[in-house]
Amino acid sequence: MHVDRIWREARLATLPAHRPGLGIVEDGVVAVLDGRIAYAGPAAEAPALEAPETVACEGRWITPGLIDCHTHLVHGGDRAQEFERRLAGASYADIARAGGGIVSTVRATRAASEAELTAGALRRLDALLAEGVTTVEVKSGYGLSLEAEAASLRAARALEACRPVTVATTFLGAHALPPEEPDAERYIDAVCGTMLPAVARAGLADAVDAFCEGIAFSPAQTARVFEAARALGLPVKLHADQLSNLGGAALAARYGALSADHLEYADEAGAAAMAAAGTVAVLLPGAFYFLRETRLPPVEAFRRHGTRIALATDCNPGSAPLTSLLLVLNMGATLFRLTVEECLAGVTREAARALGRLGEVGTLDPGAWCDLAIWDVERPAELVYRMGFNPLHARIRRGR
Amino acid sequence: MHVDRIWREARLATLPAHRPGLGIVEDGVVAVLDGRIAYAGPAAEAPALEAPETVACEGRWITPGLIDCHTHLVHGGDRAQEFERRLAGASYADIARAGGGIVSTVRATRAASEAELTAGALRRLDALLAEGVTTVEVKSGYGLSLEAEAASLRAARALEACRPVTVATTFLGAHALPPEEPDAERYIDAVCGTMLPAVARAGLADAVDAFCEGIAFSPAQTARVFEAARALGLPVKLHADQLSNLGGAALAARYGALSADHLEYADEAGAAAMAAAGTVAVLLPGAFYFLRETRLPPVEAFRRHGTRIALATDCNPGSAPLTSLLLVLNMGATLFRLTVEECLAGVTREAARALGRLGEVGTLDPGAWCDLAIWDVERPAELVYRMGFNPLHARIRRGR
Ligand SMILES: [Zn+2]
Ligand SMILES: [Zn+2]
Repeated sequence: MHVDRIWREARLATLPAHRPGLGIVEDGVVAVLDGRIAYAGPAAEAPALEAPETVACEGRWITPGLIDCHTHLVHGGDRAQEFERRLAGASYADIARAGGGIVSTVRATRAASEAELTAGALRRLDALLAEGVTTVEVKSGYGLSLEAEAASLRAARALEACRPVTVATTFLGAHALPPEEPDAERYIDAVCGTMLPAVARAGLADAVDAFCEGIAFSPAQTARVFEAARALGLPVKLHADQLSNLGGAALAARYGALSADHLEYADEAGAAAMAAAGTVAVLLPGAFYFLRETRLPPVEAFRRHGTRIALATDCNPGSAPLTSLLLVLNMGATLFRLTVEECLAGVTREAARALGRLGEVGTLDPGAWCDLAIWDVERPAELVYRMGFNPLHARIRRGR
Repeated sequence: MHVDRIWREARLATLPAHRPGLGIVEDGVVAVLDGRIAYAGPAAEAPALEAPETVACEGRWITPGLIDCHTHLVHGGDRAQEFERRLAGASYADIARAGGGIVSTVRATRAASEAELTAGALRRLDALLAEGVTTVEVKSGYGLSLEAEAASLRAARALEACRPVTVATTFLGAHALPPEEPDAERYIDAVCGTMLPAVARAGLADAVDAFCEGIAFSPAQTARVFEAARALGLPVKLHADQLSNLGGAALAARYGALSADHLEYADEAGAAAMAAAGTVAVLLPGAFYFLRETRLPPVEAFRRHGTRIALATDCNPGSAPLTSLLLVLNMGATLFRLTVEECLAGVTREAARALGRLGEVGTLDPGAWCDLAIWDVERPAELVYRMGFNPLHARIRRGR
């Protein structure tokens, strides 16, 4: 079999799409042809392979390239000053009076050009790529007008032209009320009637998300957004049950959502509904940590019902200025008591599932894109155990 | 004034030794002569400077090079497998039966050659240096025999020959009971009578530390170690009041300790005694996080009494496999509610104080070593606010 490139003497965690577990292979080989995995498995079972280039991995571990399946990478400004003021004793009301909070990010995002939005996101993206990320989801949601939401999504799409990475875009118009619109129903009218159709027509969104919470949009308003997405043939996701239980998990499941995200307040029924619908639970321990939350997501219920669990950075300026997916692995284990296997599957196979791209990325199954992370570690558990340490040896996207 | 090099167009946080605050200078200049700071301050007040080399900083921020004043960088092995097993449900007793816990690190440290110990520590050191660290403290304490403790300290000293960094070594023979010695009094006899004098004679230790805790050594045993250190003219430090209040803070203060470290259970009297003695409170939020502790150190008491506060990684395989001092800044703020100013002073000026090296490192005062970290940030608060992001532009040690 002629292939383009072979990696040998590797240990593999193949994360097979249709079997549980990490799919460990001790003496492994990976072969790529036309950017896709031609073979990944035991050397002893490999077909006869010929390639112009062979890489000896010297026992290093190969995993699928990591996937950050929930980010707000594209945004203007930062909230460091607000963070500093709050530590110095300012209240949320003080911050709001000083023009802080999400409104400040909306203002900064609207004020930035598309090129500036891309450039800002690139700094954060580069931090992710340096740790082996090959696929990243990017949401809009700080524009809150058709023009600014579309600009954010175009800025996200532009990242793919700047770096060897796959970008999945999500329209999150229903993130917050824009400062100029006090009426939530009227804003949801605009989201469903104008913004979402235009964004979909322009091919800017791979999925549609909403923030269902007391401080954001109601379940009924969320359902309206989901109906509009359905009419346009776009899959949905949901910021659900982060600060209170509004039944977001079950609502997401009802619409066959790819994922429901956060979920600290989700209940048993929500977990069961998600499992039945194939809706992935995307846990975001960075926001939990940064906001000093204490309510843990119902991990045991997810396990009981077989709800799939993914992990992501939630990279955003307000509640998770976080650009290390490896740190998220540690937080998933330390704060949420996920196992090493759950953590690693959560940023590969299950993250791919949360993006509707299982089979394309997130596994080393034949036919998937040959996106690899090659690690200088003795065992995969090290990727979860260490904090602030990057053992990436090489990052490969589509075989290169 | 002829100098070797000038950095101009910089914003400075000078962290002056004898004034509170960050010492912000908006249009600043730094000049180095023979490795030491000749001038650091406002461009408008600078003397006439001539240098063969001038660096335009384009508005970047310069802080003193960072100092990690509490690490266990030198050790054999790791505890990733133990971490994995515990997440999978194994109890501490299960782990101990399987040969895990600190004993496993002692075995791995003893089994490693000095060169292997240095090589292992270098990977961790490099992660620290990449974030602007220029001075690092390294403790022994996983050898627990004269031979193995001395080897650990020599391995720590050897780091200075491998990288442009200043290493402060600390003898921590009284870290745990060695597996072959069940009698704590007899082991402390050996520490005080044999190990410490030999280590001191060989010039291997800049300070002496102990672990005063129910699971380690009593206050009386700790006092014996401190007496022995005093007889040899060595300053002391203490792992104090981490898991219970044994009066470690006050004990450290009584011996004029450079620092008492951890301190979650320290009380008001301890804080007052430390302030009076000039003993720095070294807080270690990484261990607090990793061990999922809930008891916070008495930060308000430290503030009331004027106890100085430093921050460090505590990098160690058991309770803080952590090699990011920037992440520690965020943890200090997020978990312990330290202000941005306290966090930044805690890894510069106050960390220098905790090593007895204030005036030499940790400030941009004239006469100090010209150890600089130059940052691509808009304001110093960004160094604390972000997680898993490294905005270091350049690291300068002794002017180079
Ligand atoms: Zn989010
Ligand atoms: Zn320690």
